[in-house]
Amino acid sequence: MQFKYLMPTKVFFGRGSVRENSSELASFGKKALIVTGGSSAKLSGALSDIAAALEGLGIEYSVFDKVENNPSPETVKAGGEAAKDIKADFIIGIGGGSPLDAAKGVAVLAVNDMDPMELYTNSFRNKPLPIVAVPTTAGTGSEVTPYSILTRNDLKTKMSFGNADTFPKVAFLDPAYTETMPFNVTANTAVDAFSHCLEGYLSKRSTPPSDVLAKEGISIFGSCLDALVRREIEGDTREKLLYMSMLGGFVISQTGTTVLHGMGYNLTYFKDVPHGKANGLLMAEYLKFNYPYAKEKTDNVLRLLGVETIDEFGGKLASILGEKPHITDEETEIFASITMKQRSTASNIRPVEASDIIKMMRNM
Amino acid sequence: MQFKYLMPTKVFFGRGSVRENSSELASFGKKALIVTGGSSAKLSGALSDIAAALEGLGIEYSVFDKVENNPSPETVKAGGEAAKDIKADFIIGIGGGSPLDAAKGVAVLAVNDMDPMELYTNSFRNKPLPIVAVPTTAGTGSEVTPYSILTRNDLKTKMSFGNADTFPKVAFLDPAYTETMPFNVTANTAVDAFSHCLEGYLSKRSTPPSDVLAKEGISIFGSCLDALVRREIEGDTREKLLYMSMLGGFVISQTGTTVLHGMGYNLTYFKDVPHGKANGLLMAEYLKFNYPYAKEKTDNVLRLLGVETIDEFGGKLASILGEKPHITDEETEIFASITMKQRSTASNIRPVEASDIIKMMRNM
Repeated sequence: MQFKYLMPTKVFFGRGSVRENSSELASFGKKALIVTGGSSAKLSGALSDIAAALEGLGIEYSVFDKVENNPSPETVKAGGEAAKDIKADFIIGIGGGSPLDAAKGVAVLAVNDMDPMELYTNSFRNKPLPIVAVPTTAGTGSEVTPYSILTRNDLKTKMSFGNADTFPKVAFLDPAYTETMPFNVTANTAVDAFSHCLEGYLSKRSTPPSDVLAKEGISIFGSCLDALVRREIEGDTREKLLYMSMLGGFVISQTGTTVLHGMGYNLTYFKDVPHGKANGLLMAEYLKFNYPYAKEKTDNVLRLLGVETIDEFGGKLASILGEKPHITDEETEIFASITMKQRSTASNIRPVEASDIIKMMRNM
Repeated sequence: MQFKYLMPTKVFFGRGSVRENSSELASFGKKALIVTGGSSAKLSGALSDIAAALEGLGIEYSVFDKVENNPSPETVKAGGEAAKDIKADFIIGIGGGSPLDAAKGVAVLAVNDMDPMELYTNSFRNKPLPIVAVPTTAGTGSEVTPYSILTRNDLKTKMSFGNADTFPKVAFLDPAYTETMPFNVTANTAVDAFSHCLEGYLSKRSTPPSDVLAKEGISIFGSCLDALVRREIEGDTREKLLYMSMLGGFVISQTGTTVLHGMGYNLTYFKDVPHGKANGLLMAEYLKFNYPYAKEKTDNVLRLLGVETIDEFGGKLASILGEKPHITDEETEIFASITMKQRSTASNIRPVEASDIIKMMRNM
């Protein structure tokens, strides 16, 4: 047994968690920059809760709400400038994965004069500003990971940076903030969170504690699967999905992701398929590909999900996620070549060649 | 679902973890005080590994090796003076629970002019020095908790302090360091670690993530139970016990302990029974007492341990732990009164009265 474990974010989970624990914000300083995408932060009530908390503590703040879906390094640079302009002491990311990931880049660039492309070196002269994360989707897990995933137009994909200093210091996880998500966003983000649990469990970098957390997340996704198939997100399903999303973040903070995320990024970059859906559409093929190298773990996954076969699970995912994009043979070759360059591909439990990726994408 | 989760310690688990990750020490400064009990640190090889790591990094160090079993606030005060004398930048605790707990107090007193009894206020003007923890037993979990448990002669018991700043920054968990423990220490400390998992699981303060970790620890203890009964600690049992101990620390960092720890302190303070053994001797009665309030959880515990009944488990514990101390009726009344004053007693899943404690102690 040989492993490293680190998950330093302080998590407050539950309804009203911002209001009840707002004093946590007091230690970070007197000026905050809120980084968000504009719509979900407002709609969910998260932005107004955070604003009220800051006002109650006498902390000044500005709002940078220009984060697009799948944010670019340029957006992060603009956020860094905004933080410098107000001399921010800390950064608060509110939203789905895009604003939370952008907030991490902003926290670095706020105190480092560097080109945003240098973020990928993971080496920052000055420690990033403290980051507070408030998710409004139950998927990314970014609230409890060090990772920030930005779009690399030069490489035509998404790629992550992050080190121990880009873990959020505090995360407020309130299931109420996820209630305004439409069904397709709920479904796509839930599958993303599940993908973190699944890929961490099937990673070469999996560890005993990450496996414990991953199995819990997989089991919780299993308990939500029928509700997702029925498109009836009721009762405690929202809080279960948010809890699973947190567990997925705990897991990939130890293990990173695998070839599934790398493949999925192509569908997002070139075909505009939402991130979680992209992973979900490829998931059955991914499980079949890995099966010879992870029979026991895959059988555990199916058991924890409450399904008999990979195909049964794939059928449920298909019904949850909707239609698949059309991909030409030429495109699969390009996608395979791009995926082979992702670091996470090397973590896959079964060694991956470009031809394997082509096969998985065609079979999908 | 409503919980807080915090476990910020960076853990390096595995054989050779100090050697392989010694660079982690570089960020804490140029002068270290090593706090230890003297014997296990040397015998286990942990002290020489840490010394070699510090020398390799050009970090000066002194050794304060005056920590007794169940350390007193006075010892911690002396350690704090030693740290001040050398202007230590950080504190390294090496040993069982006593040196690790003392190291936390030393880290606070090194930078705060306060009476050691004020440690229990958990309010420190200056942040404690960074703490590095290197356990040589598999029991305390102190390497991954904020808690420091010191002997309170005024209250005739042991009592804990600690806040988010007394979590060790880094913990090196090397099962090789635990191999020099004699069987009785292995057994007593293993039961202590299990007690953390068990009490966390049966605490009113238990949370979804603490329950996941607790169940894993309970299951691992179950897989070591027969080896402990046979007194044959071989193969990967050492590393399983150390991993369980880490999980127990993760758990009580969320939940704290319960009435079992509070009762056990009496046997340690008045009867000189080692801490883990003290909890273990009372464990079957504790499980029976709580059963009406935690049927499902207790049944889970028995299933994860691989035993049929509480009595079967109690029998195994008795054979592992050896003879019980003699306690008079008068003593049980005093012990009950002292235990009722422990904060952890209020966390017990079943409300506790003094008469309940008297009954459990008599039945033991």
